[in-house]
Amino acid sequence: MPNMLDPNLPAFADIQTPALVLDASALQRNITAMAEFAKANGVALRPHAKTHKSTRIAQLQIEAGAVGISCATVAEIEAFAQAGITGLLLTTPVADRPKLARLAAVADQSDISIVVDHADQIHVLHELLDAGSRPLQVLIDIDVGQRRTGIVDTASTLALAQLIDATPGMTFGGIQGFAGHVQHMIDAQERRAGAARVRAMLDEHLHVLAEAGVKAEIVTGSGTGACAYDVTGTFTELQVGSYVFMDSDYGKLEHEGGALPYDPSLFILATVTSVNRAGEFTVDAGVKAMAFNGPVPSLMLGVPEGSTYRFGGDEHGMITMPDGAEAPKLGSRVLLLTTHCDPTVNLHAAYHVVGHNNGVETWPVLARYGA
Amino acid sequence: MPNMLDPNLPAFADIQTPALVLDASALQRNITAMAEFAKANGVALRPHAKTHKSTRIAQLQIEAGAVGISCATVAEIEAFAQAGITGLLLTTPVADRPKLARLAAVADQSDISIVVDHADQIHVLHELLDAGSRPLQVLIDIDVGQRRTGIVDTASTLALAQLIDATPGMTFGGIQGFAGHVQHMIDAQERRAGAARVRAMLDEHLHVLAEAGVKAEIVTGSGTGACAYDVTGTFTELQVGSYVFMDSDYGKLEHEGGALPYDPSLFILATVTSVNRAGEFTVDAGVKAMAFNGPVPSLMLGVPEGSTYRFGGDEHGMITMPDGAEAPKLGSRVLLLTTHCDPTVNLHAAYHVVGHNNGVETWPVLARYGA
Repeated sequence: MPNMLDPNLPAFADIQTPALVLDASALQRNITAMAEFAKANGVALRPHAKTHKSTRIAQLQIEAGAVGISCATVAEIEAFAQAGITGLLLTTPVADRPKLARLAAVADQSDISIVVDHADQIHVLHELLDAGSRPLQVLIDIDVGQRRTGIVDTASTLALAQLIDATPGMTFGGIQGFAGHVQHMIDAQERRAGAARVRAMLDEHLHVLAEAGVKAEIVTGSGTGACAYDVTGTFTELQVGSYVFMDSDYGKLEHEGGALPYDPSLFILATVTSVNRAGEFTVDAGVKAMAFNGPVPSLMLGVPEGSTYRFGGDEHGMITMPDGAEAPKLGSRVLLLTTHCDPTVNLHAAYHVVGHNNGVETWPVLARYGA
Repeated sequence: MPNMLDPNLPAFADIQTPALVLDASALQRNITAMAEFAKANGVALRPHAKTHKSTRIAQLQIEAGAVGISCATVAEIEAFAQAGITGLLLTTPVADRPKLARLAAVADQSDISIVVDHADQIHVLHELLDAGSRPLQVLIDIDVGQRRTGIVDTASTLALAQLIDATPGMTFGGIQGFAGHVQHMIDAQERRAGAARVRAMLDEHLHVLAEAGVKAEIVTGSGTGACAYDVTGTFTELQVGSYVFMDSDYGKLEHEGGALPYDPSLFILATVTSVNRAGEFTVDAGVKAMAFNGPVPSLMLGVPEGSTYRFGGDEHGMITMPDGAEAPKLGSRVLLLTTHCDPTVNLHAAYHVVGHNNGVETWPVLARYGA
């Protein structure tokens, strides 16, 4: 049950808009619900940090039972290792020496796992890893139809697994199949079928490995859209990300028996900055405040019921009201549900987290693209 | 004439990708060309900092003759005033007390100008401005058809100008008409006609002010798309922004007699991270590295001629090659012309600027949305 925040909360008065606002109660409900779902289905959780880029949220996920945290970039795995988060997995193959060197440096200090999709990555890592340190756990990324990264045939998977096992300083940990294209399918039956095809592809790779006597301990992947289907086999763990926030994009997804069982928790606090036109008004949240690759805010608080948002350039959005509705007061605040959560978070330096008694604290967003 | 950078320049080897790369020669050619164009037409330049968020680039624009710099946010005007840039104009009306207070604090220290579109802004500023300090120059923002901010009728413009003039601590400086919707029209004749309609609207407001004996010293607006037409009258100065970079979006614009006379200067340096699929490969630049609200990169260096880019989520892009072309080496670098420059710059913490002799230095991106 969403807890409807008040955009004109006194604690928001001094926040400079546009700003990320996170409802701590809804966040915790989502984390608990996913943890209970995974536990009930006997599958591990390694939630994805590319969604939140926050060690505070990662800690809540681990307290709820997650075995670790997935990261998309070397900068994320560095920041999370630095914060003492354990069970880190880099889900993106890295191919250049500068980044592999940073990764080897993290691996010398912390127990991390990574994925690869090419033998060259193994050769360079072998040169870079400190011979005396703990072995690095290496998984193989499988292309399950997204045509982005990953191995495309079972013979190459086996050859790469054998190369990893034969290389000093590393151990073969299993396989990854991430189906980003399936997570956002709106129709539940289509998504169910898409997820089944992905698992069938992974099963083929697992079969070839097993036939050769190579054990894949971990099978990692899935996401918020398909996790309800992916607990039926193949996967040992789920890399769910967006469930913590439930943005306007995931809010559109159908679920058998209703919407996905998570609450919207992440909003953009914006200020009403122009009220001169009949039937509409302008807020200070545009393309630099909210990711453009998602639907416009499907939930807005502090605006007349039935209003719609349109982007108005870098710094503005325009809100059209139903006939006869009155615009909010100039200078007042509104809350807009995030469009697409991962790239929206990346546009901000911090979350303003509304907790018990409507107190607000600030949590940093880590590992944005640096200098 | 574009200077074609080499994506595998030795000076790029240690840059962590994805990263902003700026060609200093092309940048300087663009700044000089626009300065000469404005000078030849007797119009002032107040280039827009929302494009570059860089005091280094602002200084180059001022050295070339700009009368000042336009800013879109209070954080930008604070950062640029701090750096000693003069002639700052805030082009976005601000409506809430926390931001108006920051603005009043800057105005107490520096000669800045702002725009307003509502009497309430004048009343609050009057309370906040230090009575003893220099007068704040206030312009009126006119809605010239973008339906975003601004005054919509001439009677309100006159009333607001008279209120500004009657309020201690401020002076009426003129009017602004920014037509963001006109700048991106691809067809040159359509853009010419759109720009003429905007100027005609501004002329009506100017006429009513003049009839009442109110002098509008500054008439500010226009942009890279329409500036060729806006030097024919009405405007005393141009708020051009994108000409410094010429992204994939502005590269599509037709110009009478050819393309716009500016060179592409801003690229994303990316690494080839997956090469397992026939006919295509993957780079580490996606939605978190390049703005999604523009065309995909229309110019790519280090890739086979005729290749095309598609977004592949937060951290990836996929590049499809023509039949028979060979993929670049895994781990090698490519350069992608920015999609839409302003929001792309905002995704990065710094520019890697390639200057004489291919030396690279780092310039910070300022005033991204903060905590």
